[in-house]
Amino acid sequence: ASGTEQKREIVFVTGNLGKLREVSAILNDNTEHLPLPIINKVVDLPELQGDAKSVAIEKAKVAVASIQGPCIIEDTCLFFNAWNGLPGPYIKWFMSSCGNEGLNKMLTSYDDKSASATAIFSFCAGVGQPVHLFEGEVKGKIVPSRGSEGFGWDPIFEPEESNGKTFAEMTKDEKNLISHRRRALQKLRTFLLENKDLWTKQPNK
Amino acid sequence: ASGTEQKREIVFVTGNLGKLREVSAILNDNTEHLPLPIINKVVDLPELQGDAKSVAIEKAKVAVASIQGPCIIEDTCLFFNAWNGLPGPYIKWFMSSCGNEGLNKMLTSYDDKSASATAIFSFCAGVGQPVHLFEGEVKGKIVPSRGSEGFGWDPIFEPEESNGKTFAEMTKDEKNLISHRRRALQKLRTFLLENKDLWTKQPNK
Repeated sequence: ASGTEQKREIVFVTGNLGKLREVSAILNDNTEHLPLPIINKVVDLPELQGDAKSVAIEKAKVAVASIQGPCIIEDTCLFFNAWNGLPGPYIKWFMSSCGNEGLNKMLTSYDDKSASATAIFSFCAGVGQPVHLFEGEVKGKIVPSRGSEGFGWDPIFEPEESNGKTFAEMTKDEKNLISHRRRALQKLRTFLLENKDLWTKQPNK
Repeated sequence: ASGTEQKREIVFVTGNLGKLREVSAILNDNTEHLPLPIINKVVDLPELQGDAKSVAIEKAKVAVASIQGPCIIEDTCLFFNAWNGLPGPYIKWFMSSCGNEGLNKMLTSYDDKSASATAIFSFCAGVGQPVHLFEGEVKGKIVPSRGSEGFGWDPIFEPEESNGKTFAEMTKDEKNLISHRRRALQKLRTFLLENKDLWTKQPNK
């Protein structure tokens, strides 16, 4: 078949409706809305081993093959500068094996506690189209757990710009103002608004 | 097509001829040789994130699709008991990021230095056939680097049965007598000898 099909939505691959709301709110800010709504779908994505960007690109390719239309994937990494790339994309395995206490304990013998949190949002307009990556970073340091907001490693990550609060000691709004996710999403938003033709219409396959 | 094709070889997926010789020597010991020779081929295998066995099974499926005949894949893991599953299948990323010195440093604050080295050899007779896993384990502990034999984390792994030597302080023959690789390969050898029909003849696809 050939011709041009009008796409009706962008799919954010997640099962988490809270994340969908946050992503949708940041991508559609008050100044200009995206021309298509953002919906969520759950897709089982195999995660490869490798550096963060390769992992993100491979996931996006699998997702777009399943969704057959514009889609967004999120990947989060936490890098300890003393560890030269770890936990990185393996943070979820460090969390499930050792937890926040373990991450602190493993870092005890290192003077350098600095870390950076990164979010990568991958966007692909359709099957066979390039995968675009949008990265946001927040620098900070690893500290013993404090606070009860947020999730995951939020209690042990203290951003440089937070006046001494961990992510888990900040309200959701405070965190979202400076978060790695917001920074990545703002880049994605700019790209989507500047390249509407790329993803609102796609040739049929 | 149908019918039965006589297979001519087993493929061990590796680019390392030293590993091929060792594997071939253990699988063909003096008492009984396998009915087919073992050759090596290099296949680019994507490694998934996940537990060791899932990683091994997925790799074997990709390998057999490429080789279209009986094949063997090796996976090695190093588990620190204090870390509840890490480094595990991610040991190569720990090595490339932090090295042997880093692994010791990360473990400094833990009293429990015990660890186990495991090898998983996966065997698949052909496309669509089940993947069989053969696991060998050596228990030991993590110590500051000693010795210059071997490779990778051999200098920091001291097996319980080595009279205080690390793998890197043992000759190749000493190491091969007790190694996790030998233990896994002996299980694979037994399986191959007891199930020759399964893999020496396969229906054509």
